[in-house]
Amino acid sequence: MAEALTLHEDPRSGNCYKIRLTAALLGLPLATRSYDIMKGETRTPEFLATVNANGRIPVLQVGHGAEARFLPESNAACWYLAHGSALVPTDRFAQADMLRWMFFEQYSHEPNIATLRFWLRFVGEARLSAEQRAQIMPKRMAGAAALELMDRHLADHAFFCGKAASLADIALYPYTHLAEEGGFGLGQHAHIGRWIAAIEALPGFVPMD
Amino acid sequence: MAEALTLHEDPRSGNCYKIRLTAALLGLPLATRSYDIMKGETRTPEFLATVNANGRIPVLQVGHGAEARFLPESNAACWYLAHGSALVPTDRFAQADMLRWMFFEQYSHEPNIATLRFWLRFVGEARLSAEQRAQIMPKRMAGAAALELMDRHLADHAFFCGKAASLADIALYPYTHLAEEGGFGLGQHAHIGRWIAAIEALPGFVPMD
Repeated sequence: MAEALTLHEDPRSGNCYKIRLTAALLGLPLATRSYDIMKGETRTPEFLATVNANGRIPVLQVGHGAEARFLPESNAACWYLAHGSALVPTDRFAQADMLRWMFFEQYSHEPNIATLRFWLRFVGEARLSAEQRAQIMPKRMAGAAALELMDRHLADHAFFCGKAASLADIALYPYTHLAEEGGFGLGQHAHIGRWIAAIEALPGFVPMD
Repeated sequence: MAEALTLHEDPRSGNCYKIRLTAALLGLPLATRSYDIMKGETRTPEFLATVNANGRIPVLQVGHGAEARFLPESNAACWYLAHGSALVPTDRFAQADMLRWMFFEQYSHEPNIATLRFWLRFVGEARLSAEQRAQIMPKRMAGAAALELMDRHLADHAFFCGKAASLADIALYPYTHLAEEGGFGLGQHAHIGRWIAAIEALPGFVPMD
């Protein structure tokens, strides 16, 4: 029997949604447990001792009770769920190229686009620290460069790794389709717009909310 | 016949060294081509058009001439090289857990520890922008938290994913062993010190320089 899967999440987080979207596209049952990161619910001693010493969500829990194992990092959790499925190419180069886009997402995309969305939509500009405010412009430029790179790639590719959707698309979709909440315009990126529509038409797709 | 492998790199970059270290541990021949990132050599039109539109190194080139394929993102390049080797666990959870530490490295470790090393050792504090200077303290705190998390994990584990070295260790070793160049102390992290020595004792290990 397959092991029970539980997602420790904040439903407003695109990183958490990636994992729900992967499970939905694969038809895998996934229980959820919600935390409010704005109230520090992922920094309690119990959370740090049991779920994730890094104090972050999402965390995918595999199994129950004393046998439970915990997997932080959204893209690693997606990898676990999609093991052996059509969402992971089997060809050696294609598989590495899929991971390339997933590392790009965590390094060049999420820290800019998702962080600005979090600051501007959930924290509020007036409540940002001086250090955070100094980061708005560099993050706006770096996030715009990431979107520009994606749009140019999608000009020649239906999905990030060729003709079929893979985890690279699932990793990049959540914060891209929310980019306007961080103040990024998508109107000039026609290829991204077409790709967003293609993901939303995948069988089993579930929206974020 | 195996395809020719060429690493486009700056030898001072720990991200590039990861790939050389993976190849050395696996006994794979790897040609290198050097660029000076301080002189903008990875932002030339030719580099952007051929090697990486993102203007970054490392990039692993697989094959030659018209057949060449290019793989950016250091950890994706390591994944390509280590395909099917003992550096990648085959168990489903263990493999995802290895990727978890590799995503942690790119999200929580490298942007803090490697960036401070680059700013303080190669750019020089006096030449940093006001935005960069405002980031020194947040990056120092986040980098220290990453090292603390690693040290606690290594208290119970010989390597990041259990008893044998994996790509998780190769991804985390370069900027950890250089952390003092970014102003991070390693003296209080005895488990990290023991782990560094274990990596440097692996058969086939090559130092960065």
